[in-house]
Amino acid sequence: MAKSEFFHEININLPTHEYKIHIGKACLSNVDLLNGYLAGTQVLIVTNTTVAPLYLLEIQRAFSSIQCDVVVLPDGEVYKNQHSLNQIFDTLITHHHHRDTTLFALGGGVIGDITGFAASTYHRGVRFIQLPTTLLAQVDASVGGKTAINHPLGKNMIGSFYQPHAVIMDVNTLQSLPEREFRAGLAEIIKYGLLESRAFFKRVHDDLQQNLLSNPPLLADLVAHCCEIKAKIVQEDERELGKRALLNLGHTFAHALEAYTKYERWLHGEAVGIGLYCAALLSQRMGYLSEIDLHSLDKLLQLAQLPRRIPKDINLDKLMQLMFHDKKILQNKLRFVLLRAPGDCFVESKVSHEELHQSLISAQEGE
Amino acid sequence: MAKSEFFHEININLPTHEYKIHIGKACLSNVDLLNGYLAGTQVLIVTNTTVAPLYLLEIQRAFSSIQCDVVVLPDGEVYKNQHSLNQIFDTLITHHHHRDTTLFALGGGVIGDITGFAASTYHRGVRFIQLPTTLLAQVDASVGGKTAINHPLGKNMIGSFYQPHAVIMDVNTLQSLPEREFRAGLAEIIKYGLLESRAFFKRVHDDLQQNLLSNPPLLADLVAHCCEIKAKIVQEDERELGKRALLNLGHTFAHALEAYTKYERWLHGEAVGIGLYCAALLSQRMGYLSEIDLHSLDKLLQLAQLPRRIPKDINLDKLMQLMFHDKKILQNKLRFVLLRAPGDCFVESKVSHEELHQSLISAQEGE
Repeated sequence: MAKSEFFHEININLPTHEYKIHIGKACLSNVDLLNGYLAGTQVLIVTNTTVAPLYLLEIQRAFSSIQCDVVVLPDGEVYKNQHSLNQIFDTLITHHHHRDTTLFALGGGVIGDITGFAASTYHRGVRFIQLPTTLLAQVDASVGGKTAINHPLGKNMIGSFYQPHAVIMDVNTLQSLPEREFRAGLAEIIKYGLLESRAFFKRVHDDLQQNLLSNPPLLADLVAHCCEIKAKIVQEDERELGKRALLNLGHTFAHALEAYTKYERWLHGEAVGIGLYCAALLSQRMGYLSEIDLHSLDKLLQLAQLPRRIPKDINLDKLMQLMFHDKKILQNKLRFVLLRAPGDCFVESKVSHEELHQSLISAQEGE
Repeated sequence: MAKSEFFHEININLPTHEYKIHIGKACLSNVDLLNGYLAGTQVLIVTNTTVAPLYLLEIQRAFSSIQCDVVVLPDGEVYKNQHSLNQIFDTLITHHHHRDTTLFALGGGVIGDITGFAASTYHRGVRFIQLPTTLLAQVDASVGGKTAINHPLGKNMIGSFYQPHAVIMDVNTLQSLPEREFRAGLAEIIKYGLLESRAFFKRVHDDLQQNLLSNPPLLADLVAHCCEIKAKIVQEDERELGKRALLNLGHTFAHALEAYTKYERWLHGEAVGIGLYCAALLSQRMGYLSEIDLHSLDKLLQLAQLPRRIPKDINLDKLMQLMFHDKKILQNKLRFVLLRAPGDCFVESKVSHEELHQSLISAQEGE
């Protein structure tokens, strides 16, 4: 078994909860680390059919002397639903898991979101640990305490704010990640570039020109930096009453695109790629963002080999309707996160329907 | 329309949330009071088929100038389930309720619990107001922030801690309450007597000898006092890590009895009546409670015309199995709230199976 090595340990201090993010390699086989986080003597590991063959045995080995149950869900955003949630509840209840059980989310964002939601509502809240195995989950989904499932009419419609007891990230897991999923994770990293500063945006650009997977310390640094940016924002605004809304940059578009295509066409990060371009284009059309910065973003998305345009088969009127289901709507006004420059984002509630429609037309692929 | 009159206003101050409980008569028709609590311009009222014909129009009238949707559930604990919860979510989503919507729970404990759970998880948390119309909900279920639905294998298995934005109690609603439901509410009042002090236990005894329904101020005082007792405990321990467990006096038995009979045989308060007797009997058998106090409790339950014994058709082994599903289990030990005297309750984790079994036999109806 490979010896575990730790690159970063980040402390997250929220008003009501503190926890650690461990970033390293081979840390999923660190039995002491995993056992140190148990509340009692019962464990449920939730994972999916893709991740289970790769890492499940390793985790189960750590809990061989206590009750350790497993739920293996099918892989994919379409399974982040009530049915999967019920599978978790049924397993917990039929195996008599008590209030001091500990849930482990072993997988990507979908597994993290649904396991977190199950943990937040089983017996009104039990302990859970995130073991994110995708780049997207490592940089984004495992920090911030948002849990959710989808409803047929909208993404993340039902969920909670609930913090993990710890997050353990093993960059080794990214080696086995399909290339398409790795690129999808880059979309969120690019988002953090836009949120943080021109300097970090440039660093992301430089790092993406390297082979990140062959350089675990560099990759771990990039992941750690994104976690720190997100943690800083979440610490200021855990329940998304203000600044946290900025994290939704590109996401109003992305969520509508995903709902439109029933979560089947794109990975979340791919939809975010298009969403970031749409947000930047809207910002540029409204006179906030320079054409040069819009072009730089477009180039960076291209470098990451992410989709950047709305495919021409998407009906824009129907897409706009879906955007009105988005959670960020207050008093029936659509609110967008726009940008003036990398590092200078803000919430704009005065986007006209016409302006939005024209931007969508410009962001759509030509004939 | 009757002019509203207020008897009590109680401030609940939790570490992370403050709200008011208004206790009065005709306060459900107070348009200003109701409107003062809205977050935006959308409202969903959740109620049941029994309460709707009595008070729904009155509440809807207050919101005639804004979007006001309604979910009317069938009446009863058996409907506190996933299916009803989905009805609420579907209505919210198809009617485009945004994050600033306000949910009103108009009804008893079932409506309060399920509406609170829906509010805590729709868009990761929207505002909700409790309008409890039963005695049980007024004295107990509307204070404390516990929300939940039942699972076929156990009561309140899935839920959250989520505080209402306000609670508005109209004692007039108790006039139309079926006598059986009124008596069920008395069980929780008797529980507060046991929790608080010998003096309050005696006061409950004295008050129950009056016709409470013909004396609204006396009834409001009794309700207010119970709310204050519960608020004091919850303020010290919002998430039930310590003292709050005392509120479960009698409930480990009651929940198992309800699960055994699929929530169909007793109202919750009736099961609590039997549960309180079982807890007292176990306390007496273990040498904590005097026979005199056990007898006083039995007499008080009788005065309230509540069931006090386990019917003889209940299989006690099966009942004990169900008790092991209870949420209050930590590290596989059954924990009971026991009492030394009215006002002196404590959590006991050293109850042997044999002691429990013998107590259940003694608490069962004779041949």
